[in-house]
Amino acid sequence: MRYYFLTLFPEIFHTYFQTGMIGRGVKAGIIEYEVINIRDFSGNKHNKVDDSPYGGGAGMVMAAPPIAAALKSISNFSDYPVIYLTPGGKPFEQKDGISLSQQKGIVFICGHYEGIDQRVIEHYVTREYSVGDYVLTGGELPALTLADAIARHIPGFLGNCDSLCEESFESNLLEYPQYTKPREFEGLEVPEVLLSGHHEAVGKWRQAKSEEKTQINRPDLYEKYKNSLQNE
Amino acid sequence: MRYYFLTLFPEIFHTYFQTGMIGRGVKAGIIEYEVINIRDFSGNKHNKVDDSPYGGGAGMVMAAPPIAAALKSISNFSDYPVIYLTPGGKPFEQKDGISLSQQKGIVFICGHYEGIDQRVIEHYVTREYSVGDYVLTGGELPALTLADAIARHIPGFLGNCDSLCEESFESNLLEYPQYTKPREFEGLEVPEVLLSGHHEAVGKWRQAKSEEKTQINRPDLYEKYKNSLQNE
Repeated sequence: MRYYFLTLFPEIFHTYFQTGMIGRGVKAGIIEYEVINIRDFSGNKHNKVDDSPYGGGAGMVMAAPPIAAALKSISNFSDYPVIYLTPGGKPFEQKDGISLSQQKGIVFICGHYEGIDQRVIEHYVTREYSVGDYVLTGGELPALTLADAIARHIPGFLGNCDSLCEESFESNLLEYPQYTKPREFEGLEVPEVLLSGHHEAVGKWRQAKSEEKTQINRPDLYEKYKNSLQNE
Repeated sequence: MRYYFLTLFPEIFHTYFQTGMIGRGVKAGIIEYEVINIRDFSGNKHNKVDDSPYGGGAGMVMAAPPIAAALKSISNFSDYPVIYLTPGGKPFEQKDGISLSQQKGIVFICGHYEGIDQRVIEHYVTREYSVGDYVLTGGELPALTLADAIARHIPGFLGNCDSLCEESFESNLLEYPQYTKPREFEGLEVPEVLLSGHHEAVGKWRQAKSEEKTQINRPDLYEKYKNSLQNE
């Protein structure tokens, strides 16, 4: 997988791709990435990449020509999905991460200010995604979020398949609580059943806890879970 | 606002807080941040901070004692919300960012592997938030996401109030498309109405575009928007 990031703030990407599991994926050659500074394609000596919006209003809009030129610096960009991160996009979900992990490359366009000129979206962007119902200072964290969520599904990235298979969202249930050593921590004991060695009892307890947590924190997912049971 | 991040991967925070608008907020003294490496509180010579889960299953769980010790290194941590980032939490929304921006400080606990020992959550965590319906390699990007979304609402952080007031989610409508110079880009013209100078016509066009986009990309928000109109 080769990620391309079009951004005005390249630094954050380099640190992230040297760190943690993503850093390991880069070292193992499973992930490659390239950061393209849109400002290098401003086409003017002041390196200006934004201007005020037509029709008026607060803030600045990132102009189309520098973004298009940055994109065209990727020789085969049209082979890849071109993703624009925006609160106005479709909500990015686990299943999108799984499907995008099968691509050979992905281009991410990170906006700032009041967003990018709509004509870039019309001409070049193949998908607009939102990471959640909140507004951020720019598209960098959302782009890294997608890159991270997608990377986990690339074969070889996670050592342990089980850990991927059991996780949240794929069954519409949130994860059950986890406990590790010590058995007693600040007066709180590990639940007895987890020490019992009875796999079936452990499984039932975890299932019940998952259902309980989903019902409280995510009534919307719990509804989907109940419906999926009825359709089995 | 003072942010505290409890993490196994401190590097990424330092880069982010030197960059872009968040970097400006730090330089202006509006935001302070401290990164606490949980591994420094392992309490053993191998710096081990995780162990296998009680009850069996794949992966490792972050043990309670190092996290609790890291938290207690913040002398007045109990004055602040202690937020754990997990796909199992309540979905973080714009309104949460607005309300959290009024705190003096916030502690973020970033998990890895199969999560953290449940007893940390029971004893210390005041809120569990999810940034969206996808699984990531750790809580670092979600913590930065919250920090960024919250920062935008701290007085003085954004120069321009208008830019904050008009934005997505607060009216249940997504933002309208934006255009800036040049008037013609790769054969695409700026919509005529935006050049007309008729503020009312511009406003109507933008409203219609916002409604159209919301209806397509976010039928759930559009439903809320329609209901809010009826209740006016």
